[in-house]
Amino acid sequence: MFTYQVDGTISLKLFETRDAEALFQLIDSNREHLSSWLSFPTMTWEVEDSKKFIESKRMSFAKEEGYWLGIWIEETLVGSIGYLYLDQDHRKTEIGYWLGKEFEGNGYVSRSVKALIQHAFVHYNLNKVEIGVASDNEKSRAIPEKLGFIQEGVLRDYELLQGRFLDRVMYGLTQEEWRNK
Amino acid sequence: MFTYQVDGTISLKLFETRDAEALFQLIDSNREHLSSWLSFPTMTWEVEDSKKFIESKRMSFAKEEGYWLGIWIEETLVGSIGYLYLDQDHRKTEIGYWLGKEFEGNGYVSRSVKALIQHAFVHYNLNKVEIGVASDNEKSRAIPEKLGFIQEGVLRDYELLQGRFLDRVMYGLTQEEWRNK
Amino acid sequence: MFTYQVDGTISLKLFETRDAEALFQLIDSNREHLSSWLSFPTMTWEVEDSKKFIESKRMSFAKEEGYWLGIWIEETLVGSIGYLYLDQDHRKTEIGYWLGKEFEGNGYVSRSVKALIQHAFVHYNLNKVEIGVASDNEKSRAIPEKLGFIQEGVLRDYELLQGRFLDRVMYGLTQEEWRNK
Amino acid sequence: MFTYQVDGTISLKLFETRDAEALFQLIDSNREHLSSWLSFPTMTWEVEDSKKFIESKRMSFAKEEGYWLGIWIEETLVGSIGYLYLDQDHRKTEIGYWLGKEFEGNGYVSRSVKALIQHAFVHYNLNKVEIGVASDNEKSRAIPEKLGFIQEGVLRDYELLQGRFLDRVMYGLTQEEWRNK
Amino acid sequence: MFTYQVDGTISLKLFETRDAEALFQLIDSNREHLSSWLSFPTMTWEVEDSKKFIESKRMSFAKEEGYWLGIWIEETLVGSIGYLYLDQDHRKTEIGYWLGKEFEGNGYVSRSVKALIQHAFVHYNLNKVEIGVASDNEKSRAIPEKLGFIQEGVLRDYELLQGRFLDRVMYGLTQEEWRNK
Amino acid sequence: MFTYQVDGTISLKLFETRDAEALFQLIDSNREHLSSWLSFPTMTWEVEDSKKFIESKRMSFAKEEGYWLGIWIEETLVGSIGYLYLDQDHRKTEIGYWLGKEFEGNGYVSRSVKALIQHAFVHYNLNKVEIGVASDNEKSRAIPEKLGFIQEGVLRDYELLQGRFLDRVMYGLTQEEWRNK
Repeated sequence: MFTYQVDGTISLKLFETRDAEALFQLIDSNREHLSSWLSFPTMTWEVEDSKKFIESKRMSFAKEEGYWLGIWIEETLVGSIGYLYLDQDHRKTEIGYWLGKEFEGNGYVSRSVKALIQHAFVHYNLNKVEIGVASDNEKSRAIPEKLGFIQEGVLRDYELLQGRFLDRVMYGLTQEEWRNK
Repeated sequence: MFTYQVDGTISLKLFETRDAEALFQLIDSNREHLSSWLSFPTMTWEVEDSKKFIESKRMSFAKEEGYWLGIWIEETLVGSIGYLYLDQDHRKTEIGYWLGKEFEGNGYVSRSVKALIQHAFVHYNLNKVEIGVASDNEKSRAIPEKLGFIQEGVLRDYELLQGRFLDRVMYGLTQEEWRNK
Repeated sequence: MFTYQVDGTISLKLFETRDAEALFQLIDSNREHLSSWLSFPTMTWEVEDSKKFIESKRMSFAKEEGYWLGIWIEETLVGSIGYLYLDQDHRKTEIGYWLGKEFEGNGYVSRSVKALIQHAFVHYNLNKVEIGVASDNEKSRAIPEKLGFIQEGVLRDYELLQGRFLDRVMYGLTQEEWRNK
Repeated sequence: MFTYQVDGTISLKLFETRDAEALFQLIDSNREHLSSWLSFPTMTWEVEDSKKFIESKRMSFAKEEGYWLGIWIEETLVGSIGYLYLDQDHRKTEIGYWLGKEFEGNGYVSRSVKALIQHAFVHYNLNKVEIGVASDNEKSRAIPEKLGFIQEGVLRDYELLQGRFLDRVMYGLTQEEWRNK
Repeated sequence: MFTYQVDGTISLKLFETRDAEALFQLIDSNREHLSSWLSFPTMTWEVEDSKKFIESKRMSFAKEEGYWLGIWIEETLVGSIGYLYLDQDHRKTEIGYWLGKEFEGNGYVSRSVKALIQHAFVHYNLNKVEIGVASDNEKSRAIPEKLGFIQEGVLRDYELLQGRFLDRVMYGLTQEEWRNK
Repeated sequence: MFTYQVDGTISLKLFETRDAEALFQLIDSNREHLSSWLSFPTMTWEVEDSKKFIESKRMSFAKEEGYWLGIWIEETLVGSIGYLYLDQDHRKTEIGYWLGKEFEGNGYVSRSVKALIQHAFVHYNLNKVEIGVASDNEKSRAIPEKLGFIQEGVLRDYELLQGRFLDRVMYGLTQEEWRNK
């Protein structure tokens, strides 16, 4: 009932606790791939961790503070996308995403991000969407760059991952820019 | 994004706090009509009350314990429908609903209930759907009766509303019955 | 101090955490007997579980939402009885009870239920007492039937216990009926 | 059901929220009398305050940390008595009490204190009961002195009431002393 | 006891609730001045609001998540400075500050920021200190620029204040840069 | 930053979670010594217990209800001192303290207690400081006695430690007495 059909292929679905198993398996089988740029694999060691993640994100959804969706291709969970926060006071949000390595190259993330941008500007009437990416993460940076986001800065030593400090490139797109494209 | 299109006319939407104004207006303009059979109008005296109702029901949704949806005809909120609880242990649920008086006679409730029954049996794989109605509420009783529910009992003095004790007719439909129709 | 002397034999006592050991032993030694009709044995695997049950029910007592009492014959705990809820708005309650198999046949439950019915109607001035029993549980059904309760319905597939769906017979007794006996 | 009959005249009853009105009236009509030695009248200005006091003390009861009882002469609330705390680790408690001025001189408090002492030593098997009284409060000091408590100290400036610092006389009675009387 | 003497003139003190009055007066008398760049004056309308702010920030301090200090010149509160967060995982913090208009031009903020930078690098051994300032706020931008921070980006439409979207200049200083100066 | 320099030797510091290891080691290596008079060693069996103690005491500090400080001699934690409570209504507090056995005989506790007395009377403007000590604990009793506290009573069987009931000597010092010395 709470499924958003992006197109004939991709559907986005608010996580339910029943998805914990699939979510855990996807993370576990992509552990090395994901851990280069993201910290959540280091907090996900068993299905119960994914269950707690889902419960906590459903709470955020209930409070209208942000939420995470599964990216599904038919019955297969291939990745996740979400609003890291929804700031109605300052009318902005940040979109985050990740994909299983074996599902790359099909435009799944790109099309999903587009859907969330539209929802942010049309349904929530926000003023700005931000995307932040580790500076060395070329694949991930390609998404906002192809979608016309403007690079607004590079925050140095933004996070400490596996002993390395990563810089973070900050991208932004305003509703006005989005409408004028 | 979290809208379920029942058909070309009706859409069901998880309440957001932004809907509080519309929800309050619908209740307030139907106060007398609704108060005959339902107790929530006596707890709804200002928009803030509807906001708190929405927040509390979103919490139930987050915990997967049940939820309420607005019934929308285009941009107009005409009523509400929901799962009063979702009992995964005993595999059952109860569906509740109400409609603004001016929107009666169009089958809005009937079609919405059908959608929730299907979701209960297909998505949640529940074993039974219950509906409970005040025994004098003819219009509301017509719904489960037309949909093939079986009357299982009449609980006397089930609730005290405006100084009267109301009996409650209990209806039930099992997944097996639903599939065999 | 908080003991209710039903008669020369039976006393009812609000559970204290010091009773956890006795409560657990009674459940554990009646596990098979109780599990046919009741779900709590499947949640009671060590004394700590009984302690948590007692703490949680004392909380309900504090909030005046219902409570559970031990049925004691001198220094021996033989069973339990309680108000599953106390609904002062709609002026009703439901009484639940169970007994160790070795203590059956002495009228312990029957006399205890009578005491709680009286307390419900006299002290709390409720309008109705309900009792719900699994339809196959003949011994338990005999209680409300002997006490003049009226059968109001049979809710099908009310609960899922050990893989079987159990129907539930609903009995009710109003204060008026009780006073006219 | 939760009434302790001290003798033919006095009964002690755990407060219920329904007693809030009677409790408030008793405090309000004895405001000046009580405020000389006790601080709670300054926190009790409407029935709602008494209701909150009762709810909070029922919570303490649920947690087995102490509780307050109404002293009733038939249908009249005349005062209150309670265990300020129940310390099972160090096996001790402190008893507190107060009475409406118009009910003084009948031994109500003395007999109620005796009942709580017995309950502390027999039911809870505590090692010591303490009573603390403002040093100028002659009437209240008479209670532990007549009951054989030993004066163990005078804590200076123990509390600040209506701008005056009050000393507190500390009395104690051990289970051994109580049994040897 | 919890006062940090920056030099002979300035002392920094963790807020206590007793400071609520002074804090409120300083904000209230600088309302227009502060509201151009900061949002908290719009949440501070009475002493009670400042008391709640202090209580909430003391909680953050207790959890070691960040804290706010009063900037005092003898007995006069002139402004405030704090760690907006303390991220021990990624070893970074952000410093925020504001000053009453009548106290500008004495280097109070500059010297206080220096003290907090040193504490961040020496006591907490963090890797990076960030400062974010509204792009039009020249006076405030002068602080990180004089202290050798590097400008890392300009986040557009970062906040919505009094109907205007403000950009935010992000400055950063690493421990290595700080030690090499 | 939150260090109070008692003199050239002793500094008092609000505990941070980073101190948990040092605190645990000090308690663990003084287990027998401390357990004669104090109960907390029996609740401290691993570093995590000390961490929880610190978190809980920081919460008390945040609420201005009392707090505990480490007594440090340069980089070595030698003991602890604190306000067991801060009662602003009745304007009093109680000071507690303990020291590692190998650090005795240097006046560390005595000088630290003096500092906390002064802070209690000057900063908090309290009316009275209390100190309670087990009656057999000669070393600990010497502190209030040398500092001019008045013995106000001996509470019998105050606590049960390792199977023995300990009496407690209560000492008190008023601000007036302190100023007149």
